[in-house]
Amino acid sequence: MDYASITPVAREVAEAMRQYESGSFANPSALYAEAIAGKEAAQNARGKIARILNVRKNEIIFTASGTESNNLALLGVFKACRTKDFIPHIIVSEIEHPSILEICEEIKRLGGEVTYVLVSEEGIVNLKDIRTALRDNTVLISVMYANNEIGTIQPIKEIGRMIKEWRQKKDTLIPYFHTDACQAVLYESLDALKLGVDMMTLDGIKMHGPRGTGLLYMKQDVTINPIFFGGGQERGLRSGTENVPGIVGLAIALELAEKMKESELARLTDIRDYAIEKILKTFPGSTLNGSKDLRLPNNINICFPRLDAEFAVISLDVAGIAVSYSSSCRTLKEDSSSYVVTALGKEECGTSSLRITLGRESTKTDIGALVVALQKIIKK
Amino acid sequence: MDYASITPVAREVAEAMRQYESGSFANPSALYAEAIAGKEAAQNARGKIARILNVRKNEIIFTASGTESNNLALLGVFKACRTKDFIPHIIVSEIEHPSILEICEEIKRLGGEVTYVLVSEEGIVNLKDIRTALRDNTVLISVMYANNEIGTIQPIKEIGRMIKEWRQKKDTLIPYFHTDACQAVLYESLDALKLGVDMMTLDGIKMHGPRGTGLLYMKQDVTINPIFFGGGQERGLRSGTENVPGIVGLAIALELAEKMKESELARLTDIRDYAIEKILKTFPGSTLNGSKDLRLPNNINICFPRLDAEFAVISLDVAGIAVSYSSSCRTLKEDSSSYVVTALGKEECGTSSLRITLGRESTKTDIGALVVALQKIIKK
Repeated sequence: MDYASITPVAREVAEAMRQYESGSFANPSALYAEAIAGKEAAQNARGKIARILNVRKNEIIFTASGTESNNLALLGVFKACRTKDFIPHIIVSEIEHPSILEICEEIKRLGGEVTYVLVSEEGIVNLKDIRTALRDNTVLISVMYANNEIGTIQPIKEIGRMIKEWRQKKDTLIPYFHTDACQAVLYESLDALKLGVDMMTLDGIKMHGPRGTGLLYMKQDVTINPIFFGGGQERGLRSGTENVPGIVGLAIALELAEKMKESELARLTDIRDYAIEKILKTFPGSTLNGSKDLRLPNNINICFPRLDAEFAVISLDVAGIAVSYSSSCRTLKEDSSSYVVTALGKEECGTSSLRITLGRESTKTDIGALVVALQKIIKK
Repeated sequence: MDYASITPVAREVAEAMRQYESGSFANPSALYAEAIAGKEAAQNARGKIARILNVRKNEIIFTASGTESNNLALLGVFKACRTKDFIPHIIVSEIEHPSILEICEEIKRLGGEVTYVLVSEEGIVNLKDIRTALRDNTVLISVMYANNEIGTIQPIKEIGRMIKEWRQKKDTLIPYFHTDACQAVLYESLDALKLGVDMMTLDGIKMHGPRGTGLLYMKQDVTINPIFFGGGQERGLRSGTENVPGIVGLAIALELAEKMKESELARLTDIRDYAIEKILKTFPGSTLNGSKDLRLPNNINICFPRLDAEFAVISLDVAGIAVSYSSSCRTLKEDSSSYVVTALGKEECGTSSLRITLGRESTKTDIGALVVALQKIIKK
């Protein structure tokens, strides 16, 4: 029950990758038939992904992780916009993933400005707060599609529309709008055009895809600098030999996710709501962290008063149940308390909340077992 | 015959990875048993690699490619050393891989200084030239172990010794010594202690390892900044969820390479020398690019006077033979001419040289077929 942390590689994905690992293994930058086959396989994969995202093929940049994609988006735009006379300003939500928050620390070290937009008790950003934070030197707004700890879904489409209006009014191309969609990928629409995002991060490990893969969708007119340098692959924006099996696997994973999206959304929403109701009823004083409605169908994040969440995770492990407290990724300054839960105004829940995240193999039976195991821990 | 470009994933590597892709797939940063198993698998792999490199476990930083490792090494040291009052100076050879040369361009854009050391007609750097280039603000020397185009092997041990003496004389920790060992991995000793290197880059795709994997060995006392930011994995130097199957596969690939090193070195040296002799005899005027002796056992790089190398690669492809001209990775400013061959003082060979690189499945029979195919092209 920790699918938000990582998902297993789907069988279809593993099978599709195998061919490009040892049979058709050529470097796609070479000139002979085998290399061209590799290049075509990667281009086909790019096309499949572009169709799902409703964007152009050349707007997909393959990377090695969501973290890298986030770095390319934020640092890349910052560096492209920074001049002697221009200090770029960036807006993010206070509950972004550590890979965004730590990049913001770097941007500040490099002389940039960052505004952190607060979230409501429900864990949702307020459109007006973002609008108020906008300045003439704002080059980028980055708001995650869905939160990795509490699963709350942000009003991406509305933010996108507001930014577009601002740009039209000011007759400018900036600020760009980036969303980290790593957690939303399996359950929400990824249509970048409809969402109104200029950049979007996805990660293979969150979508039953290959390890060490990610991508950044980047609208054609976004001005960006690479964060590393070399053979000039991916339009010069991401050097390094293309990971052909990884790219092929990523496309299969995304196609599979699209195919299962609707049914998994319904199935997991049902299990999630059953779980929330059952847990809140069984454990007096327990509360749900984050909105119940604007929430990923696979996320259950509960505060159990005075629970030592770290201890609970280890005790549940003994019972054969894997959950987490806060998330697997931490910000560097953070102690074991969750900055996301704390941001909801539930300071006392920071160290006493459990994140239970469902996935393709989850059933209602699992919830029963979880509640039984929790009863043993919480009775103590 | 393009093994220098990429190698197929070894069967043993693919098998070892599978378990961590879907069975034991947990995120190693989590707390439960499955996660700890993943963490242990990664730590075991780290230990295996550290033993082969004769370094400490915590001196291995896993990345997603050789390109990324090179970026971390050069940009990381540059950024860590750069202050308002200190302009770092870096020394590299003129025949480094594009992933080094392009980073040098970035370092110059960032205000750093770079000296390019020339190579001899044999394609070997001169120790004295490096010594002469040393300055008090030299923070890093990066010389590739073996060249990716012409396979010449640089005097790494001697450079390492000279740098150590310089540091002792000046009573300083800098300059650090980095080597890109991507091409040398299968045939040369990787004992970092004996080589006297402070940093070393390796890439999975060059050692029959997993795609999208690489590593940087980094001596404990090297001061370095990360190039991207996030969850703080790899001692905060390389954020992003650890690619457990990739790490496990990398260790298996390296172990396998060590096991086969001696016998493959002998076997391929024999085939290489046979090939060089046969080609030079068959095609009057053809010459070997780079030293015959200080050369990887799998590299044959020949200049055929007035040959259009690009056309030859395509013609050989029709005959079912894959070779390359220059390399798969290009510097951004480069045309189709090879800057490496040109650096040997053989300007006229820049566009008329073929790189033929052997590997585990290469035999003498392949050479016979290659010569026959070449005769058809070159007669025309």
